[in-house]
Amino acid sequence: MTTPPVFDHAFQDKLAELMAWRRDVRRFRGDQPVPAELVGKLLETAALAPSVGNSQPWRFVLVEDAGRRARVIANFERANKDALGDYSGEQAKLYASLKLAGLKEAPVHLAVFCDESTLQGHGLGRRTMPEMLDYSAVMAVYGFWLAARAAGLGAGWVSIFEPEALTRDLDVPDDWKLVAYLCVGWPEDEQAEPELQRLGWEHRREVAEQIIKR
Amino acid sequence: MTTPPVFDHAFQDKLAELMAWRRDVRRFRGDQPVPAELVGKLLETAALAPSVGNSQPWRFVLVEDAGRRARVIANFERANKDALGDYSGEQAKLYASLKLAGLKEAPVHLAVFCDESTLQGHGLGRRTMPEMLDYSAVMAVYGFWLAARAAGLGAGWVSIFEPEALTRDLDVPDDWKLVAYLCVGWPEDEQAEPELQRLGWEHRREVAEQIIKR
Repeated sequence: MTTPPVFDHAFQDKLAELMAWRRDVRRFRGDQPVPAELVGKLLETAALAPSVGNSQPWRFVLVEDAGRRARVIANFERANKDALGDYSGEQAKLYASLKLAGLKEAPVHLAVFCDESTLQGHGLGRRTMPEMLDYSAVMAVYGFWLAARAAGLGAGWVSIFEPEALTRDLDVPDDWKLVAYLCVGWPEDEQAEPELQRLGWEHRREVAEQIIKR
Repeated sequence: MTTPPVFDHAFQDKLAELMAWRRDVRRFRGDQPVPAELVGKLLETAALAPSVGNSQPWRFVLVEDAGRRARVIANFERANKDALGDYSGEQAKLYASLKLAGLKEAPVHLAVFCDESTLQGHGLGRRTMPEMLDYSAVMAVYGFWLAARAAGLGAGWVSIFEPEALTRDLDVPDDWKLVAYLCVGWPEDEQAEPELQRLGWEHRREVAEQIIKR
């Protein structure tokens, strides 16, 4: 048996720093490719995420075809226009000014699906909470994101899509449910503060407001 | 502006090692309390998770009351008995032998909810994918888990519950949806291999089987 590793205080602090500097990035250096080997390594790390019943339901789709990417971008543009219609006045102006995706510049497009039909795990732990399967795929996304940031990459999660159309356009099996679509690349700049806070859309609250005892 | 931190190769490797050694722990040293200060620090780290529109919808409920814990345990026992009924033969025997929760021994019970009614974030990014709100809370869970493991703690995610009854028993606002229930404490032992794999319930697949290109 391998001896368990020790994660000292310096590492623990650095981990918290990583999480603090893990930004949703939407501005990429479009001229800087990401080595396929690095993407492969990050996906291996992502796949170490917890999964209900050891079901590993995440399915990673690297979207490389230019035609497919164009349809993804068109989908975003439609959904974003519709979303803008929900706001009015100053808030609409602010929304319109936000950069909510980096789909055109990002060298890597990674769609993450959940295979709702998987038999892996034999149903353990998802009888009363079937959403656990999706949640497992979500943790793989966060694992990818943290590992990417540690390697100097930025990732941005785009959710302004019509998910059924996107799933169809990517031609994946019918039972795969879209969980996330990530733009990945080398960031133009690095910030500890969320862009939505910096630009005045929404500010962060203290964690103390989010804790209760029972 | 602060200078962005550098995460060197040694840190990147250690991060992957952390993810590999992040186990779902269900065997705790029940006599070893977890300092409240440490739990507070871990929740701060958890709250650095990405959230759609900067909505921070996670709500952390520290379940301390013995009466409430007893109802949580009874809920698990009912749901686990029902789940056992789904299996037969050797698989039923194996299921019955698994330790699927550490609710009695774990010094810390942490329930994580998603506040479905929050106005924080002003709906950004969840018009066509409303599940993004739950997913944000899920990422806070994984952030907590990783930080806990780095500090030498173990966490186990229990999903074998009737969620409505659990929500009612914890007396939280109506709009809060149960996302996760974690047992947290000092682990009895440390393993790199998932217990469900070790005991023959389900084995891990290679990530290569989970990647496709489009």
